[in-house]
Parts: sequence; structure tokens; C-alpha cells
Amino acid sequence: MAAYVWAVRNVRTRVVHLESKGGHNLVSVKLEIAQEILLNLVNVMPKERVALQECWRRILGETVTSDMDFPPFTRSPLDGYALIAEEVATATPENPVILEQIDYIPAGGNPSKTISAGTASRIMTGAPIPPNATGVIRLEDTIVNGDSVSIVDGSGAEKNICLQGEEIFLGEEVVSQGTIINFGVMGMLAVLGKSRPYVFRKPRVALIATGSEIVPVDFPLAPGKIRNSNSYMLSAQVTEAGGQTVLMGNASDNIEEIAHLLESASDCDLFVTTGGASVGDYDLIGEVYKKLGITLLFDRVSMKPGMPVLAGTRDGKLYLGLSGNPAAAAMSFEQLVRPVLMKMAGRKVWWRPRIKGILASPFNKKTGAKRFVWARCWQAETDMLVEPSRALGNGMLKSAMGANALIVIPEDSPPLVVGTEVEVILLADA
Amino acid sequence: MAAYVWAVRNVRTRVVHLESKGGHNLVSVKLEIAQEILLNLVNVMPKERVALQECWRRILGETVTSDMDFPPFTRSPLDGYALIAEEVATATPENPVILEQIDYIPAGGNPSKTISAGTASRIMTGAPIPPNATGVIRLEDTIVNGDSVSIVDGSGAEKNICLQGEEIFLGEEVVSQGTIINFGVMGMLAVLGKSRPYVFRKPRVALIATGSEIVPVDFPLAPGKIRNSNSYMLSAQVTEAGGQTVLMGNASDNIEEIAHLLESASDCDLFVTTGGASVGDYDLIGEVYKKLGITLLFDRVSMKPGMPVLAGTRDGKLYLGLSGNPAAAAMSFEQLVRPVLMKMAGRKVWWRPRIKGILASPFNKKTGAKRFVWARCWQAETDMLVEPSRALGNGMLKSAMGANALIVIPEDSPPLVVGTEVEVILLADA
Repeated sequence: MAAYVWAVRNVRTRVVHLESKGGHNLVSVKLEIAQEILLNLVNVMPKERVALQECWRRILGETVTSDMDFPPFTRSPLDGYALIAEEVATATPENPVILEQIDYIPAGGNPSKTISAGTASRIMTGAPIPPNATGVIRLEDTIVNGDSVSIVDGSGAEKNICLQGEEIFLGEEVVSQGTIINFGVMGMLAVLGKSRPYVFRKPRVALIATGSEIVPVDFPLAPGKIRNSNSYMLSAQVTEAGGQTVLMGNASDNIEEIAHLLESASDCDLFVTTGGASVGDYDLIGEVYKKLGITLLFDRVSMKPGMPVLAGTRDGKLYLGLSGNPAAAAMSFEQLVRPVLMKMAGRKVWWRPRIKGILASPFNKKTGAKRFVWARCWQAETDMLVEPSRALGNGMLKSAMGANALIVIPEDSPPLVVGTEVEVILLADA
Repeated sequence: MAAYVWAVRNVRTRVVHLESKGGHNLVSVKLEIAQEILLNLVNVMPKERVALQECWRRILGETVTSDMDFPPFTRSPLDGYALIAEEVATATPENPVILEQIDYIPAGGNPSKTISAGTASRIMTGAPIPPNATGVIRLEDTIVNGDSVSIVDGSGAEKNICLQGEEIFLGEEVVSQGTIINFGVMGMLAVLGKSRPYVFRKPRVALIATGSEIVPVDFPLAPGKIRNSNSYMLSAQVTEAGGQTVLMGNASDNIEEIAHLLESASDCDLFVTTGGASVGDYDLIGEVYKKLGITLLFDRVSMKPGMPVLAGTRDGKLYLGLSGNPAAAAMSFEQLVRPVLMKMAGRKVWWRPRIKGILASPFNKKTGAKRFVWARCWQAETDMLVEPSRALGNGMLKSAMGANALIVIPEDSPPLVVGTEVEVILLADA
């Protein structure tokens, strides 16, 4: 309750303005305040143990401290002869040093003899170095003759040795909680025997598309109808942000129906609807919140696209009502829901990287509320160039399909000419 | 067979040099030739149909042409009144234009009346525009009084209309085969009713770790043993490249055992072993290939780390034997296996993006064969800076964990000082 009371108070005191439209008051907040309110309301998910092979891209739920040295024993990095390095340092093909082979140490085996002057043990890659040996000469620099081995190049033997603990030492903090598990982390967890590490449970996100014009994606299209694309679009955004999608289907413009779908998803951790979020006869999400006892935090965010956003809370969970327009819904998700999911999923960093870019084609509109534009950026000879991807077509989904960046246009900006320096949010591999 | 004969001939004619080491001849090739040979040997996977909600990050296996206009009908982008735009263009609060409401068109519904002079139809967001209407005035710019509506701001009505087919037209090629399905593509496929699109089947990659010193990750460590970390590390690399991992466990240094595991995985599309790939008593992969009738293509690639790589082919499938050293195995995978998997997975682009960077800390080693160094890059005020991540620790897995880039060092380079311009391969979000 504390978080929720805090959030409500915060909205009340920090609201930018109240608008009266279509007969009711809208609580409109700045984007940064909306983000702060939402991030303060959610907590990181509980942990679960997951088989290591399923952990790619999961978020580590524990800080892993090594309970061993690695390598666990001083070992040979190559096939050759373990010996006393100083004894052979000057060996050449003309003046070889001849040693007696006293042991044979396979990988996975253990030495049975101690090296002394004039002796060497044949050793395989990864096998433990025998006592007293201070180096290894690789097989290619030897000539073997029965139990006798001639060292024909004896330089650098002391480098061919991997010391116990040189990579990881007992008690070392190796990977910290909140790290995303990439291939290097995965290998490291395997080294340390973490076959079922703790990871944060993925937040379950219920997605509901509202609107009487909407039919499921595999339905034939009757006149006046369109397919539910928002749920699929958002489901990809949820997955990318580390969440797990629960597709609840679509509801017509009916309070009971929407409320029923929301309550059917009550085991979820976050609830996202599309449609019914702006002002009009059929904009029902506010009514649904009232009916379900969900406290409204705000219902408008000053950004474009994506201004209509209802945020509500009940029992510590967050409910978000996005626009039914895909352009607006995708951008609201990107700016408001993604950081929230990143926090819930246990990530350390909730924001995408930002860089400076130079406009390679103009942006011809004036900007009132802060604006985000789907864009493509690329590294040119000296500058990072960027251009709005609307050039690719009018349609929002078309623009977003090819985008690798967003251009951030500050509020109250004039049209922007080629060469203007702009702030760029990187969406993925740049 | 054609591809395989081609590849063998190619190796024979383009080999850089044959080395004689430890009693057998090694076929050593330049990295670029090795890449070309491998890429020419593999084909893109067959297609399969997959439920759209499972398609995030899958590769589209069909070029999607729209069988409809989108929007499928001319519709309203907002709640308001559909009318003849010219009739109300000059309306102001002082000089409103008063119209008769003749219809009510909900979203998902259809108009029942044609607009004529002096009339308007109440219309909801997403509902079809009635015949003869040329624009929409939003609800906020009207005053409603029974069946009569006063338009108090009549400007721009003609802009509030989304024309049939303005986003996508019937017969338009919307998404091309080989596109990675991100949120925009996913939404677009839903719009077009592609509830089960064709995607390329993920290549199944068998992973086998060899070495008598290796135990499974959940086994207790006996003296002289280490855990199988390579398979887990590579499994993450396989997944990232769009493949599906088949973890076949580990084998000791025994031809029969390794051969048995390889044959048990015969339904896989690509076979990757680690260990036993260099020269020595226990370097058995070459022997395993002989036993199984796998034709050896080459067994050494001039790059560092990752020089020992056996490549073989049988029945049109590729077998790769990587080093048992994680640093070498990960880099060989990155340079040789990843592009192959990207091609098999149906990707259009097989290579990671490359940019220029400026060394922020020195690289103190001489370079013989072309070298790749795990690194971190970041955008500074004017330059993209990069530094070897070995600064973070000696251990390869530690370096790789934090890396977002690779520095490419050309062959025969001296040590590199701070400020040197270097080629940088971007690994992920930069």
C-alpha cells in the first residue's frame, strides 16, 4: 500500500495540468514523471531456479562467488613434456637437452611422479602439472626415442603453464546479481558448477486488445472489422524486454467483457490493454478501472505519439491502458512499459543507450509535446547519421519494422533541417 | 555431392600452406577462405509453419504480399462527426455550422446512411466513414444538442480520415523472406492475418565436449577434472545465432565414445565438438572423422585465438571440431560457425556490423596471424573508443562476459599504441 499511496500523492502534487475534455478531467503528466511514478510502483520479481541450458538472456538472481580456484589445479595448456624449465632453457637442435621420461599424465589423470633433475613427464593438454615441474615444452619441439626425450627448443617453457586460480580465485565475486546471461556468463556459471542458477522469474504480462472492430488474427474479416495486431506487436515488445506474454485475446467495447478478461488474468504481474484509452463514448478503460477498484494514477502523458495512457494500480500491481492506434501503443510501450518490465525482470539498467546523431534528412513538423520518431541510424565517415524511417512509408508498422533507432525531439521544437544534431535512442544492434 | 566436391577442390587449390607437425600434415587455410568454404557447403533450412505468437526473432520463410488494402476501409482516426469537410471549413465558436445527426456508427459497425448537405453522422474511432463524407470533426470541437450538432471549429476535417489502402495496398510486397521478426514485423503479419507464417526451421546443432578431464556441470569435481563449460558457452552462442542446441554431453578421449555420440545426434544439421582438435596423442577428432567417413576439409585456420579447427563434411552436413580451450572455441565459433548458422537459419546478412574505433588503451602484443580481441567500445565526445577487455582480468570467460565488441588486428601487426584506429566488430547493443 505504501508505494501506491506514494504514487497517488506524487501524481496529485506533480501533475503538469488537469485538462477537461469531453466532460471529464484528465490527469496529464510529463513523460519523466510518468516513468518515475510507474518505476516506483513495481518491484523486482521473485527468483526461481532454472536449468543452465535454459538460461540464455535470463537475468541472474544471485551474485555468484567462486567456491574454488580455476583452474582448480596447475595444468598444461598443450601436449608436451613437463620439466624443470631452467634445465632446458638453452636447448637448441644443435645442443639438445636429453631427459628421461618418467611418467605419462593424460588429461583427466594425475601425476604419479615428482620431477627431478634430468627427468620429464609426458603431459597432455589440460592435465595437472607434476610436482617440481616449472614448465612445459610442446611436443613439436622434442624428439622422442623410447624413454628418452630430446628437447630441441627449450625457450619459454615457464610460459606454458596455467597456474591454479589464475583465472578465478576461491572466494572471488565472479558475476553479480542482475547480469544478463550471455555466452560468457553461461560458460562461467558452468565452470563454477551452477547447473541450476537462480534467475529472476519473468514478469507475466497480460495483453488484451479492446475494440468492437477487432477480430482475432485467424478470423475472416467482415466489413468494418480489422485484425488484432496490437497484441502480437506488444507481445514481441514484452518478450524483448524480458517478460512473458499472456495473450488474453480481444474484447468488444463492453465494460463487463473487458473487466472479465482482466480478472481472468489475475495471476499476471502486469496488465496492458489497448484501445478505449482516449476520450469518447467507447473509451471504457477508465470505467473498467472504476468497476474493478483500480486506482487511476494518470490518464494522459505528454509525449507524441502515445499521449493517451491510463495508468492504474490495485493490490500493488500495475494496469496500463494504451491507445488502440499501433503507432501510439508501440511508443507508449517503449517509453513507459519497457523500463517498468526491465526493472521487474531484475535488470540493472532500465534504459536504452543514447547517442548523438546528425539528421540526414529533414523532419518537417513542428513539435509541441516531446516527440519520438522511428528512425534508421548508421555510422558515416565521421558522423553518426540518422533519418526518420517514415521516409519508408506512411504506415507506422512499416516504419517500425525497419527502425534501429528513435530520434528524440524536445518539446516546442521547430521543424528540423538536415545537419541538426539530435538525440538518438539505439533500439538494437547499431 | 556437388557442393562437397566443390569444397574439397577449393581447399586443395586454395590452401595457404600445408604444415607438417607431430608427424601428420595439416591443411591450414586463411580465415576468409575457411569462411567461404563452409558457407558454400551449407544450405538454408526447410520451412515450417509456426504460431505467430511464437515467432519473435524467427526468420520469415516467405515473402508476404498483402491480399487486402489496409486499412481495409476508409475509417475515422478519432471520435467525432463524419461530414462534408467543405461545408464546415469556416466554422468558429462565433459562427458555428449546425448539422443534423442522421446516423451513429460504432467501431466494428457500418454506416447505414449517406451524408448529404446539412447532415453528419456520429462516428467512433476506427469506424468506417459513411458514403459522401469527406472529413471528420472531433467531438471536442462540437456542441451536441439532441439530434443537432454545432461545429465550433471546422478546420482540417479532411485530415481526420484514414484512406482505404493508405498504409498497405492490395498486392503490395510488405515483408520479404529472410526478415527477422521483430515487433513491427509481428504486428504487420497479424494485420495481414498470417496467424501461422512460414519461418525457417532452426538449425539443430549437436554440441559434444571431448576430453577425459571433463565432467558434467552438476558432477562433483574429482582431482584433475574440470566441468564442461564449453557446451554451455557454445549453446548460448548457437541460440543467439538463431540455432537450436542439442546438448549431447561429454565424451572422454576415446574414438569410439566420440563417434557414438556424433552418430546418436544424426538428426542434427550441424555438429560441433570441442577438444581433441590440435596435435597430440589425444587429439582424436581427425581419427573420429576417418572412422565415420567424414571428409576432412581443413584442420587449421590462420586466426588467433582459435587456430585449431577441423572442418569435415559427410552427406552434405558439416562437422566442426573446435579447440578445447574456451577462448579459442568461442572465437572460432564467432568467426566460422556463426556465419554458417546465420545462412542456415535463413538470415539475409551473415556478418556483424563493423565500425572504426580508436584504441583507448594499448595492445602490447605483436600479431602474426589475424587476431580478434574481446573488447568494450563506447561513444566518447567525438570518437568511438575501444579497449581490450583483457584489462578486466586474464580469464577469457571474464573478458568475454563484459565484451560488446571485438577488435580486429590485421596479420603481421606491431604492438598497437593508444590512439591507433582499429576495425571493431559490434557484438550487440552498442
